[in-house]
Amino acid sequence: MPNPTAAMLVIGDEILSGRTRDSNLHYLAGELTRRGIDLHEARVVADVHGAIVDAVNALRAGHDHVFTSGGIGPTHDDITADAVAAAFGLPLGIRDDARAILAAHYARTGMEFNAARQRMARIPPGARLIDNPISAAPGFSLENVHVMAGVPAIFEAMLASVLPTLTGGAPLLSQSLRLERGEGEIATPLAELAAEFSDLSFGSYPFNQNGIYGANIVVRGTDGARVDQAMARLAGLFAP
Amino acid sequence: MPNPTAAMLVIGDEILSGRTRDSNLHYLAGELTRRGIDLHEARVVADVHGAIVDAVNALRAGHDHVFTSGGIGPTHDDITADAVAAAFGLPLGIRDDARAILAAHYARTGMEFNAARQRMARIPPGARLIDNPISAAPGFSLENVHVMAGVPAIFEAMLASVLPTLTGGAPLLSQSLRLERGEGEIATPLAELAAEFSDLSFGSYPFNQNGIYGANIVVRGTDGARVDQAMARLAGLFAP
Repeated sequence: MPNPTAAMLVIGDEILSGRTRDSNLHYLAGELTRRGIDLHEARVVADVHGAIVDAVNALRAGHDHVFTSGGIGPTHDDITADAVAAAFGLPLGIRDDARAILAAHYARTGMEFNAARQRMARIPPGARLIDNPISAAPGFSLENVHVMAGVPAIFEAMLASVLPTLTGGAPLLSQSLRLERGEGEIATPLAELAAEFSDLSFGSYPFNQNGIYGANIVVRGTDGARVDQAMARLAGLFAP
Repeated sequence: MPNPTAAMLVIGDEILSGRTRDSNLHYLAGELTRRGIDLHEARVVADVHGAIVDAVNALRAGHDHVFTSGGIGPTHDDITADAVAAAFGLPLGIRDDARAILAAHYARTGMEFNAARQRMARIPPGARLIDNPISAAPGFSLENVHVMAGVPAIFEAMLASVLPTLTGGAPLLSQSLRLERGEGEIATPLAELAAEFSDLSFGSYPFNQNGIYGANIVVRGTDGARVDQAMARLAGLFAP
């Protein structure tokens, strides 16, 4: 059975203006790979309602899971919940369960639970809340769309709650071989080996560090014995 | 006149598997912002022909410029040139001008100009070559699609060649104010100020560092005097 597939949607003007460097995609990619969920695609869009709605609808139709990051705070530029609800044709209002979580958090910390903070209790009907152990405001999963915070520590904590609820596949295993030779020298035998081991994927990633150039050859697959076989053949082909 | 718009397409299994952390998006975003070209969207796709073709066609139809990174080396997993040519319905063969550049490079460095390396001289008809001062293999611009390398140093060098040829807009200026207060406390007056200065964009980016939490408020716009006015009002609203 093929592995489940996933897409990521990063939401935020700050990524596209160059102010902030996204780190959630890299983190999600590693976590999904370990669990055998294949991340096929990622998109980054601005804080624009129509852009978020269109991306959510395109991605949820094409993948088993969609993970979003960003835009679920209390300020005017946090419009992800509105856009996801709109993508599903659902209303968005304050939900009692989310409000209770936030009310308890602000009572405990002595901060006012004002109108702006109550915005964070707006959750579409039918969505499952995602726990936020850091700042309380929950994310949510609506069908196959998992809506999470953009702040990396909160994104990572939310993902830790969501992942155990998803059916994984065979984890993707990888091994790599560092070669201090130009890609152009190894390309032809490498392509022949990749064609022979067509159940595996072979990537070649060039580097040039301190005047030493070469390539890391990465072999990926779900069958560890096959990856071992391919690595042995690789080492035989390119050993110095 | 509105600023030109752009999209980025990052191509590579290694980004989606979590092996490699992309840095070209962040670099491109900063460079475009400085030149008044608005980066509206980014996508990351795997080394899959159909996925690249579809993304190139979707993005080139919707934006003034598309910048791609990755997949233009000599190995079997480098399929970007094939996919971009296919997206335009063009053939892809070795072009004399590109071959001459590569032949000179390999003659100079004493490396063999073999079949795998000749693959890097395959350029669609009508495309303009993009200089690669590091490893010679050129990128290319085909209409509004700029095809560049994934290795960051080469991507950045290629971008430095391409950007001066593009018409820019009014550079986006930004100023920020760091507030050690919860976003929920400032959200309502901030939204009111954002509505009053509707020609500017206001972003709020929460942080939590070493137990200090707060938000950076970023005001962006192309009119420096207006940004100054908004910052003065912000400081007045939220000064301690």
